[in-house]
Amino acid sequence: MIKNMTEDQITLYIIKALKENKHKEFTTILEELQPYDIAQIYNDLPEKHKARFLLYINIDLLVDLIQELDQPEQLDVLNKLGLEKSNKVLDLMDNDDLASLLDELSPEKIKALLAGMKKEESKIVQNMMNYPPETAGRIMTNRFVWIRHNYTVREAVDKLKTFAEFASSLNYLYVIDENRKLVGVVSYRDLLLAEPNDVIRNIMYERVISVSVTTDQEEVARTTEKYDFLAIPVVNEDHVLMGIVTVDDIIDVVIKEANEDIEKLSASGKSIDFDTKSFVAAARRLPWLILLLFIGLISGSIISRYEATLEKVVALAFFMPMIAGMTGNTGTQSLAVIVRGLVSNDINKKVISRVIVRELGVGVMIGAICGTLISMIAYIWQGNLVLGLVVGSSLLLTLIIGTLAGTIIPLILYRFNIDPAVASGPLITTLNDIFSLITYFGIATMFLNYLI
Amino acid sequence: MIKNMTEDQITLYIIKALKENKHKEFTTILEELQPYDIAQIYNDLPEKHKARFLLYINIDLLVDLIQELDQPEQLDVLNKLGLEKSNKVLDLMDNDDLASLLDELSPEKIKALLAGMKKEESKIVQNMMNYPPETAGRIMTNRFVWIRHNYTVREAVDKLKTFAEFASSLNYLYVIDENRKLVGVVSYRDLLLAEPNDVIRNIMYERVISVSVTTDQEEVARTTEKYDFLAIPVVNEDHVLMGIVTVDDIIDVVIKEANEDIEKLSASGKSIDFDTKSFVAAARRLPWLILLLFIGLISGSIISRYEATLEKVVALAFFMPMIAGMTGNTGTQSLAVIVRGLVSNDINKKVISRVIVRELGVGVMIGAICGTLISMIAYIWQGNLVLGLVVGSSLLLTLIIGTLAGTIIPLILYRFNIDPAVASGPLITTLNDIFSLITYFGIATMFLNYLI
Repeated sequence: MIKNMTEDQITLYIIKALKENKHKEFTTILEELQPYDIAQIYNDLPEKHKARFLLYINIDLLVDLIQELDQPEQLDVLNKLGLEKSNKVLDLMDNDDLASLLDELSPEKIKALLAGMKKEESKIVQNMMNYPPETAGRIMTNRFVWIRHNYTVREAVDKLKTFAEFASSLNYLYVIDENRKLVGVVSYRDLLLAEPNDVIRNIMYERVISVSVTTDQEEVARTTEKYDFLAIPVVNEDHVLMGIVTVDDIIDVVIKEANEDIEKLSASGKSIDFDTKSFVAAARRLPWLILLLFIGLISGSIISRYEATLEKVVALAFFMPMIAGMTGNTGTQSLAVIVRGLVSNDINKKVISRVIVRELGVGVMIGAICGTLISMIAYIWQGNLVLGLVVGSSLLLTLIIGTLAGTIIPLILYRFNIDPAVASGPLITTLNDIFSLITYFGIATMFLNYLI
Repeated sequence: MIKNMTEDQITLYIIKALKENKHKEFTTILEELQPYDIAQIYNDLPEKHKARFLLYINIDLLVDLIQELDQPEQLDVLNKLGLEKSNKVLDLMDNDDLASLLDELSPEKIKALLAGMKKEESKIVQNMMNYPPETAGRIMTNRFVWIRHNYTVREAVDKLKTFAEFASSLNYLYVIDENRKLVGVVSYRDLLLAEPNDVIRNIMYERVISVSVTTDQEEVARTTEKYDFLAIPVVNEDHVLMGIVTVDDIIDVVIKEANEDIEKLSASGKSIDFDTKSFVAAARRLPWLILLLFIGLISGSIISRYEATLEKVVALAFFMPMIAGMTGNTGTQSLAVIVRGLVSNDINKKVISRVIVRELGVGVMIGAICGTLISMIAYIWQGNLVLGLVVGSSLLLTLIIGTLAGTIIPLILYRFNIDPAVASGPLITTLNDIFSLITYFGIATMFLNYLI
């Protein structure tokens, strides 16, 4: 019925059903909707209708709904539901979604939320919360079907059917031995093509790709993406199967990590989106800006050391922004290449030294071309050949230095296990300001007698 | 056997098998490996062993292998295989992989490659190549199982079993009517839980989320991610089902689009990775740098217009890099927030005006704080209260201007359907250099009599 309606029309229709107490119509509409759509509609609903919405919606859809919301709305819904119903919802939630709901809450709040849950469910989540943030252990789910290696194909298919509703993914079955260790994987296709009496051990694929509970989520995403998997099994240090990470969570990780790289490269501060308040956004950005302000003052003090030079040849100031800017730009370019390259490459000494040599080559080439160009421009503009040569040779040198700084600084940070993206664009730019001013005024002072 | 071996050990083992003509051992090892691993090993193989590797590997694994390689290696393999075998491989390849192999090749080369293929296979790919690049039509596959709405559940399951090997994804079956229009979707779970004689029409889910063949791939990725789908159906303008896009391709799109944003934000040039040659990387980066060099010269000419001011108060030069740098930094921060926000938000006038007001607020707040700070520092350092006030009020103004420039410029570009990320960080930085110098020297000149 609602097949061809827009989201706004559906929302109005639902409000009407709520107002007129048409419980059955409400349920009929909701069952035609995706969880994401239900969440959108719930968010758009006027506050006064939300309570009845939550009263009318059945428990399964309620779980779907809450899993689609952001943390503040999740807590608000749980609050609205009251203790008994919210405990039921928490019991039914996927444990990875529950873990991310609890993420960043205070220990007291977590305890309060878990208190009313079933013991076995709350224990699983508490165990997950013990893994470091952003690891496989925090984003895995236990909603998957495992089978024993001594099952027959028939037994495996029966188990699969029994748990069809429960399992997140039906494309693979993970095989464990008597100690719950992961020993193989069977695709659904393998099961279809095998004989009912074949033993799983004999048809399973043994070289299972898995990740550890403590593997960084970025690494988990990279592995899943490389192999085009729909899910990847997660094991503990004894190779016991603990859970699986599904591809929808992998996509979220990929998006989140890319956003983090961009945030850091632009020093734009942690998680600022369109809905962040001015005050919060300003507070998140200020620390970087104040640090960069002080670094910028270092540039100033360098210039002040060359005050005498500058007083004699004020024209030197004309080229300052260009030289500093160009050095900053080339550094940012190198930085971006390195930061993204570190994500998608296997890193070893050979790769590192090759990329440094490559960037050195780039620096020399662009330095030579831009340096020559600016020499001519400066000579024509100011009618001073020496000035042209000073500006040009400075630019050559600073572009090489800038390129290397943008390459080597993130690599050093990476070497010391610091996220190279913290060497944000603005930081590299500001550092390169300093390098370029020292070079420029150094060369200018050397040739001062010829400049005047 | 090779379960616990490292990739290097496996490679050595394979080389040994190739050298000693052990065809059977070679096959045994390969069947234990994932396509990605086979491709890695093939890439690592010394050139002299590659021909025999391609001779020994069976056609199905060969197809898997070639789908994992990058385009230059794919063409190299096809070349090595000879005409007959390479036609077989092309026939068996997933059509989305084949389309991306053909991407950016010359029309003659494409014609030559398709010439030996089966008519029906080559026609599908040629049709795909007619869709604009980066749309759903270019990344969809036709390897999926569809069913008619008048099938019974039993018929659907039978068809599913028949095509199990062929289908990319087994989690959903897409339902079409007599005109091949997409009318519903049935999950595998629905099939398991329904009675064998139920008619699909009665158990299917009708509000199918689909995308059009011409939908931008970024939009396809966003929809799939929102709904946590493993695949999304693609329809033409008559709502006829044309193919599906699977989640592994969605992940590739997400990664590619994030990398593109970062490339553009840092003006680092199109697709430079660790393997790009110096010469190529320099050529790709130079256009931006030369443009920025000329824009940088505009800054210079602005300073030259204020030469008289600068000659009288050389200390003004000390604060130039700090003011220009800070303005550039705040602009980059805003830019990054906007570029990523445009990806993940539904954009309308309300959202736009709210985010502009928000950024204005941010600019005022950080301007007031940083301006006050620098006023005091400048006063203490140079012992000149007026200088302190000039520098501070300039910074206040330029930070507001810089923040707004970083916000409004990408929004204007977006309005005119230009990718806002082309307003790269360096471009915003360089423009903000100009704004900040005009403001700074303008204010300084106004108060020149008090400054000296």
